Amino acid sequence: MKKNIIEPAFLSEAADRIRPHIHRTPLLSSEILSHKWEVDVRFKCEQFQKVGAFKARGAMNAALMLSDSERNRGLCTHSSGNHGQAVAWAAKKLGVPSVVVMPSNAPRIKKEAVIGYGAEVISCEPTMESRESTLQKVVEDRGMTFIHPYDQWPTILGQSSCAREILEDWDPDLIMAPIGGGGLLSGTALTTSVISPKTRVIGAEPEGADDAFRSMGSGHPEVNKKTQTIADGLRTNIGHLTFSILRDLNIPIGTVSEEEILEALKEMWTYTKWLIEPSAAVPVALLKKLAPEWKGKKVAVILSGGNMDLEPRSLFRG
Amino acid sequence: MKKNIIEPAFLSEAADRIRPHIHRTPLLSSEILSHKWEVDVRFKCEQFQKVGAFKARGAMNAALMLSDSERNRGLCTHSSGNHGQAVAWAAKKLGVPSVVVMPSNAPRIKKEAVIGYGAEVISCEPTMESRESTLQKVVEDRGMTFIHPYDQWPTILGQSSCAREILEDWDPDLIMAPIGGGGLLSGTALTTSVISPKTRVIGAEPEGADDAFRSMGSGHPEVNKKTQTIADGLRTNIGHLTFSILRDLNIPIGTVSEEEILEALKEMWTYTKWLIEPSAAVPVALLKKLAPEWKGKKVAVILSGGNMDLEPRSLFRG
Repeated sequence: MKKNIIEPAFLSEAADRIRPHIHRTPLLSSEILSHKWEVDVRFKCEQFQKVGAFKARGAMNAALMLSDSERNRGLCTHSSGNHGQAVAWAAKKLGVPSVVVMPSNAPRIKKEAVIGYGAEVISCEPTMESRESTLQKVVEDRGMTFIHPYDQWPTILGQSSCAREILEDWDPDLIMAPIGGGGLLSGTALTTSVISPKTRVIGAEPEGADDAFRSMGSGHPEVNKKTQTIADGLRTNIGHLTFSILRDLNIPIGTVSEEEILEALKEMWTYTKWLIEPSAAVPVALLKKLAPEWKGKKVAVILSGGNMDLEPRSLFRG
Repeated sequence: MKKNIIEPAFLSEAADRIRPHIHRTPLLSSEILSHKWEVDVRFKCEQFQKVGAFKARGAMNAALMLSDSERNRGLCTHSSGNHGQAVAWAAKKLGVPSVVVMPSNAPRIKKEAVIGYGAEVISCEPTMESRESTLQKVVEDRGMTFIHPYDQWPTILGQSSCAREILEDWDPDLIMAPIGGGGLLSGTALTTSVISPKTRVIGAEPEGADDAFRSMGSGHPEVNKKTQTIADGLRTNIGHLTFSILRDLNIPIGTVSEEEILEALKEMWTYTKWLIEPSAAVPVALLKKLAPEWKGKKVAVILSGGNMDLEPRSLFRG
């Protein structure tokens, strides 16, 4: 067997570190979906996590691993989605200031959520270059600490606590998670390799943002020239660190079409009554495709979050 | 104090009777909503009930209270919504046939759900007259037993089990429930009057279908000449039996506007990540209005169900 690529204590310490701050989310079954798909499926419900997404885990662990003086100078990040809320939430919880750089075209509701957690929002142009240079200025001018959304150990260690809880509750044959930047999936792979090496881990990615899938083929981190997917949380390119972890642990990535994502989202909303976001439906869609291979097996699917801007007004108009 | 209008054992026996068949749904809190509204609120999550709505309780109790020969001849009802699914589900669970009369304009997804539970669906014209005459023919031709959606004791006794679970878990100052035909609200009022007379019960109704509110004013069951509300489960007129129970127990009814329902729905979807249906948002909207009067008090809100036809395809188009 392969040597662990991480000291197991680093993983358990991260889980202990964030435990007082996060929800231990439920691992819930669905009789009807298990019956339909002919696998024994349970869902790890990170839509019920703080800030409505697993991102709270990584942001909190990263914030807690800083020195007091680093933390007290404040946290900053750039984000158009859940990670921005997570950093704002963690900073508020720890009583330190935070800045979130957001593209000027980010939905108003996302900005309001970040402001609601007490962060200062700084607008930038909707390009990665502008996001990074604006953030760099915050780091330089204010001495704040950048919390990377996925490509740093403290974030990955925080995300690794999610699979730990699954493996404390159950003994699955397979764990499935979505992959955007790769923080959740690499954390899941690390924990599983240490606690339950017999459990397989598979990553799920939209065809319209399949950088991780291509990276596994080419042997180095690929980027998306453009992305086309409703799974907005998964448009990010895989990181260098997360790529190396996933490659070393031989984690396969499966892709699904937009049609398959929509189907899975519809089925989840209809049968579970949980408002999961499109990104969370991606591993569900992949499970549906792979179900014949895993017939009768125990499969845990990580539902990454539930943040989407559903507007009842537009649904019921006309 | 007023004499009980029901033998308390009838209520506890109904709860015991259906317990092996239904979910004991969770009573969940929301820190953020309690904080926003300044009441200690918990939600009774009937969206997670069998068939996705509290209706499973009443249909199952009614089916179980029949004689063997009545039950074996099969169950029938007319419904365009959750009650049809509940009767079909109860019949399947008990191994007897069922027929659900549905208006020809009922959404395809609702018909499919009823058929999915094994019922035969008979189409009728989309008028109450046609529903009733078509059903009458099923009763006469096939000897099946009509399970009324609300205006009969066995149904009301089944619905009464929901408030019983709330009062086993918690000690609320107030319980709020929506009112359509009145089965859930009258069952809630009966249970509460027996188990926890100090707990207040308030019914919530859309302004666009305010028959119950007007009935309490006039002293007899009023009807809606027309209804205009997104809360499709609450367009039904109050029953004669349910009216008399609510009147005898002095249950006040509050109304809310469509704007208030939409706001409440949005707030629930955003903060709880539970996919509740518009009818379930009606008592939430009323709680928001009444919150100043109940500041700091313990309020349980019954979320009646989570069945709505949300189509991701139309949400993400364009």
